[in-house]
Amino acid sequence: MDLFEALFTRRSIRKFTSEPVSDADLDKILKAAMLAPSAHNCQTWRFIVVRDAAVKAEIAKRHPYAKMAEQAPVVIVVCGDTTAEKNAGFWVQDCSAAMENLLLAARGLNIGTVWCGLHPIEDRAAIVRELLGIPGHIMPLGLAVLGHTDQPFFEADRYVASKVHYDKW
Amino acid sequence: MDLFEALFTRRSIRKFTSEPVSDADLDKILKAAMLAPSAHNCQTWRFIVVRDAAVKAEIAKRHPYAKMAEQAPVVIVVCGDTTAEKNAGFWVQDCSAAMENLLLAARGLNIGTVWCGLHPIEDRAAIVRELLGIPGHIMPLGLAVLGHTDQPFFEADRYVASKVHYDKW
Repeated sequence: MDLFEALFTRRSIRKFTSEPVSDADLDKILKAAMLAPSAHNCQTWRFIVVRDAAVKAEIAKRHPYAKMAEQAPVVIVVCGDTTAEKNAGFWVQDCSAAMENLLLAARGLNIGTVWCGLHPIEDRAAIVRELLGIPGHIMPLGLAVLGHTDQPFFEADRYVASKVHYDKW
Repeated sequence: MDLFEALFTRRSIRKFTSEPVSDADLDKILKAAMLAPSAHNCQTWRFIVVRDAAVKAEIAKRHPYAKMAEQAPVVIVVCGDTTAEKNAGFWVQDCSAAMENLLLAARGLNIGTVWCGLHPIEDRAAIVRELLGIPGHIMPLGLAVLGHTDQPFFEADRYVASKVHYDKW
């Protein structure tokens, strides 16, 4: 797929077919995620691939905006390892860039995705911390809920000229 | 350009030719940035396109890792508008995803980029806040320094199997 087709047609998909996501596709998606830039190249991202139906159902029940996780074949929890940072706090940016690569790579494989936020809402991060046994130094950033879909992808345009300033604010 | 070529060969470029970045390329890059996902679709990103040589030189002088900004044709300051948020703090993730789209779109146009961090290091964010007159509710996330380059792009592999967990940490 063309880069700009992926950039311009990626959108949040919340309905998935029952077709499984192959290990090959998942590996390619995670490879792309790990090629994001990171502060001081610390690559603080970590991933938990959840296919367990009971865990997905529990995430869907507890997270206010992740109902679709129950019927999605895969949920990937993107986390940051705070002990891998050189400068405290940059893990959020590292992991957000990795998440965006992950979503785009999935789009390139015709796999739909939606990013459901966790951090910095502590009780939302606590849902997956408890369910998945995530230790204290690992911070859950967000969920990528993904699967094949029969929903359409189409080009959006959110360009707003007033959001661009030139040479000064 | 193929999506996966862009994802797999984007890397930090710190040497630029004197060729200007066209307005058409810049618009396409910013359009891609504004198509990133954002929490509750708040699209909190804002951009300052800096071409002023004196400002770029001053950024290069004051930021410890942005010496290349002086000879780069363009520096884009990616900022978040905290008054546009529904849930406080998500602007960092919105703007990091927009930054990653920006870097990938530039790669697709054979324009080199490097992301220089500002937030959450307050005195670094203060450099551009002061130089560009950025108001208090607008948070500078980071700099995208960009330009055409004669440096090579090549495929990297940073996949680390131990960073992927399955069904539990």
